[in-house]
Amino acid sequence: MNTIYPVIWSNNKVLLIDQTSLPSRYTLVEISRYEDMAKAIKTMIVRGAPAIGVAAAYGMYLGARDIQTQDRETFLKHLDKIAQILRQTRPTAVNLFWAISRMLKTAYETLGTVEEIKKILLETAQKIQEEDLQTCQAIGHNSLSILPTNPEKLTILTHCNAGALATAGYGTALGVIRSVWTAGRLNRVFADETRPRLQGAKLTAWECVQEKIPVTVISDNMAAHCMQKGLIDMVVVGADRIAANGDTANKIGTYGLAVIAKMHQVPFYVAAPLSTVDFSLETGDLIPIEERDPSELYQIGNTVIYPDGVDYYNPAFDVTPADLITGIITEQKTVNPKELITLKG
Amino acid sequence: MNTIYPVIWSNNKVLLIDQTSLPSRYTLVEISRYEDMAKAIKTMIVRGAPAIGVAAAYGMYLGARDIQTQDRETFLKHLDKIAQILRQTRPTAVNLFWAISRMLKTAYETLGTVEEIKKILLETAQKIQEEDLQTCQAIGHNSLSILPTNPEKLTILTHCNAGALATAGYGTALGVIRSVWTAGRLNRVFADETRPRLQGAKLTAWECVQEKIPVTVISDNMAAHCMQKGLIDMVVVGADRIAANGDTANKIGTYGLAVIAKMHQVPFYVAAPLSTVDFSLETGDLIPIEERDPSELYQIGNTVIYPDGVDYYNPAFDVTPADLITGIITEQKTVNPKELITLKG
Repeated sequence: MNTIYPVIWSNNKVLLIDQTSLPSRYTLVEISRYEDMAKAIKTMIVRGAPAIGVAAAYGMYLGARDIQTQDRETFLKHLDKIAQILRQTRPTAVNLFWAISRMLKTAYETLGTVEEIKKILLETAQKIQEEDLQTCQAIGHNSLSILPTNPEKLTILTHCNAGALATAGYGTALGVIRSVWTAGRLNRVFADETRPRLQGAKLTAWECVQEKIPVTVISDNMAAHCMQKGLIDMVVVGADRIAANGDTANKIGTYGLAVIAKMHQVPFYVAAPLSTVDFSLETGDLIPIEERDPSELYQIGNTVIYPDGVDYYNPAFDVTPADLITGIITEQKTVNPKELITLKG
Repeated sequence: MNTIYPVIWSNNKVLLIDQTSLPSRYTLVEISRYEDMAKAIKTMIVRGAPAIGVAAAYGMYLGARDIQTQDRETFLKHLDKIAQILRQTRPTAVNLFWAISRMLKTAYETLGTVEEIKKILLETAQKIQEEDLQTCQAIGHNSLSILPTNPEKLTILTHCNAGALATAGYGTALGVIRSVWTAGRLNRVFADETRPRLQGAKLTAWECVQEKIPVTVISDNMAAHCMQKGLIDMVVVGADRIAANGDTANKIGTYGLAVIAKMHQVPFYVAAPLSTVDFSLETGDLIPIEERDPSELYQIGNTVIYPDGVDYYNPAFDVTPADLITGIITEQKTVNPKELITLKG
């Protein structure tokens, strides 16, 4: 199996796979300053809720490393400001806030010199990364016990990219697909192209090609027709933030997909680490939904494809109510969304 | 009001608006031979079920005009072959077959010389065109009595382009929108961009801009989120073929849209002339669905945007079961799909 790591710690800097250039070019971007990490998150060079968390953790360390003081209080005050800037990059994915909080908490709870805190911050970022990889593998493993028993070889539809590229590696939804493939239970992946940024066609399809997993790309509006024709056995998607009641924010289009899956009695699973669950929010209505620049819709590359004089609406995420979700596959176990609260740490 | 006519008879030839060049360039293509008309239909220079019918009718005349014989039987035999070639251009839209059959029937039923038959064929093509324009205006008018009473100004979602460009002029679904706009009951149009060929963003949005109708373009996968947010009061789409039981084939994505509209109790209307109804087919399962070239998905303009090694599925249409359709707005009246059979001529 090929290994794809979107965030790499190497020679005292971070290397990011530039996900805006895939699949036409595979390039690594070097990040040595937290401001550049903030920009990389904002411009989606790195994207996907867990990967954003890992990137932000390293961003916190890079920022900490450059603080020129030996005074603990001054250091922590500066670190607070760095956290604030990193928090402002993307509003929906909770892993961002979770990772930043964990790094900050580590700093505050570490007694000792500023240099010692810096050392422990690097270790913590690396730990967040390692844990996420293990978490993804556990999610993949846990999915094997909830697979439909028929047919023997499943055709699984996924939306956007919740793959290795969206995590520390291996992926959540695509981690499930990797595990099903390895277990010999996969027939084929159907990948929604996922307008407007086309992460399904560009990133999910690219990951599948790397591992020779058979993949069929469809436009988002074909999923209902495919289900009507009986082509899809199961849907698995990732999550950007899950409320305590199981309502799930994920890439725009996920909600519509859940509605049509329900209508066709196709099992609809969310695969996500517990770090994606925001137990402070009672329901999904409270999840902030990022609205992105309309140019994502009206141009492809540098080409404007739509007429002048048109308005655009470009919400990047939507919220799928818990009652449309068959189960949430976490690193601990798969739960009915209503039972999610029992996993609160 | 601007007038948009996709098919124009002028100086003994047909001018087609090149719909593959909109919205960036407005150009007219001259067609003098039936083979060029067949090619124009196939390559979607002219598209939209009623417009294809009009174009094919003129194609039949252009073919007839060039038959070099005075012998009636020889002429009709040649005309049969021309009909056969025009029928092979697109499989789903029934207006194509309807218009060709009407032209053939006219030829066979006209007594007199070959020259007299040719003259009547031109008149028949023009009549089909005029009737379609009047039909669209009647559909628009008939929609006014079935509009939701609240709110006063409606936000209407449409899919693909069932506009002036898709008909002789005025449009079916967009004809309804024009009528609602003229009646002062329209707040705004939401246009699904309609992957893969983007007719919603390119053609529907362009038509709205011409007439200063406010239009918001969204990607297809945003419609469910918009309905969840209460932004949409009504959905109106066109049709490529309607079975006797009301099952409706229309642009891919229509079926998913109908499912989510039902779920949100948003009225879902099909606007179509009776020439779109194929009373010979009992149910929608029997409607042939065109599968088009995968390059429509994997490249935009001349740019390949997706990775190598991927499979594609590109059905151009889907079938919406009658029970998801609130009503079918025809030139005679609006009917429940189950009552469609009462309008059989």
